[in-house]
Amino acid sequence: MSETQMPTARTRVVREPHRAAYDRETVYRILDEAFICHVGFAVDGQPYVIPTSYGRKDSNLYIHGSAASRMLRNLKDGVPVCVTVTLLDGLVLARSVFNHSMNYRSVVILGQATLVEDPEEKLAALRALSEHILPGRWDDARQPNERELKQTHVLRLPIEEFSAKVRTGPPIDDEEDYSFPTWAGVIPLEMRAGEPINEPRLDPSRPVPPYVTEYRRD
Amino acid sequence: MSETQMPTARTRVVREPHRAAYDRETVYRILDEAFICHVGFAVDGQPYVIPTSYGRKDSNLYIHGSAASRMLRNLKDGVPVCVTVTLLDGLVLARSVFNHSMNYRSVVILGQATLVEDPEEKLAALRALSEHILPGRWDDARQPNERELKQTHVLRLPIEEFSAKVRTGPPIDDEEDYSFPTWAGVIPLEMRAGEPINEPRLDPSRPVPPYVTEYRRD
Repeated sequence: MSETQMPTARTRVVREPHRAAYDRETVYRILDEAFICHVGFAVDGQPYVIPTSYGRKDSNLYIHGSAASRMLRNLKDGVPVCVTVTLLDGLVLARSVFNHSMNYRSVVILGQATLVEDPEEKLAALRALSEHILPGRWDDARQPNERELKQTHVLRLPIEEFSAKVRTGPPIDDEEDYSFPTWAGVIPLEMRAGEPINEPRLDPSRPVPPYVTEYRRD
Repeated sequence: MSETQMPTARTRVVREPHRAAYDRETVYRILDEAFICHVGFAVDGQPYVIPTSYGRKDSNLYIHGSAASRMLRNLKDGVPVCVTVTLLDGLVLARSVFNHSMNYRSVVILGQATLVEDPEEKLAALRALSEHILPGRWDDARQPNERELKQTHVLRLPIEEFSAKVRTGPPIDDEEDYSFPTWAGVIPLEMRAGEPINEPRLDPSRPVPPYVTEYRRD
């Protein structure tokens, strides 16, 4: 699990290299806590960045979508892709404007995506994607039928060329700024789930399942 | 403000076109609530997607960074860029797996970024960026000096070619699925600020300013 990958010239963290991590354990932990990635690909030299959900199974990242989407149409031809996942953990307030920062954890994966053709892998990937976002939901919902599976494309991106970047902790000021008369510290930020909202046609006596009421990421 | 832009072939929303918006009011509202964007650019055909903070001033988006960063080095040469901003508002649980979705608001801006050379525009952009993330902070912190300004690069991206995509509301199920015996509805998601954490060397009698204790995005 904690195998460390040597960064390539493309994944080596250039700026603030002490914040870089190249081990799978760190990368998988970030990938497993988040569930939205930003997928980058270029068409005729113009890059596009599209937000989408994802799942992970072992060393593969899976994304899915409609065959009609611009992203899926382009990615399935095996163009170079960059998938970036970002968790924002806090605002870091130094005494000087210049040393303000953010606490975050991010992962960048480069590679080429492949259309998953095997029906078993496809179903397993969709299940992994669903369980990644909301564990417990898949078995509690109506399963996909043949027609729906046909309309859904699943892409596999091997997690092979990657890096993570992590900043934690308090602000770091220049020594002469510690006497500057202002507040300094961290405002923690977190994605929180609110009160579940029943679908309007739902029988109001139906209980809300624990995987919904107790939903949280960590 | 509410001027509507005709989408180009590149910004037209292909999938779920009823969720598209092309007016500046919608786009600015999303840009002003979020403060992290994902910047896409390609180097030798390989796309990169990098998370970073941003500010908006009128119809320009500003990003900043160290002259040493890979992103800044590439972007200042005027390569085509895509900036994507995503707000995640909730998990949408339909009765069928296939109709599960998310509530979100996202903006995509295409164009070319330019290095801001004018010192006044540069300082105003940095101030806008800081005030965008945490209103009230700039005037309360030690201002940037000449050396720090020189180390910081600011890029301007005109908000000219753009689109927004928005999903709100409950899940939509196929008619025959409304009788399927499961819970359906929305789990709202929100970025929340936690209790501020003092920097370790801070005088503990210094009060936490209201712009910190009352921090929230909306």
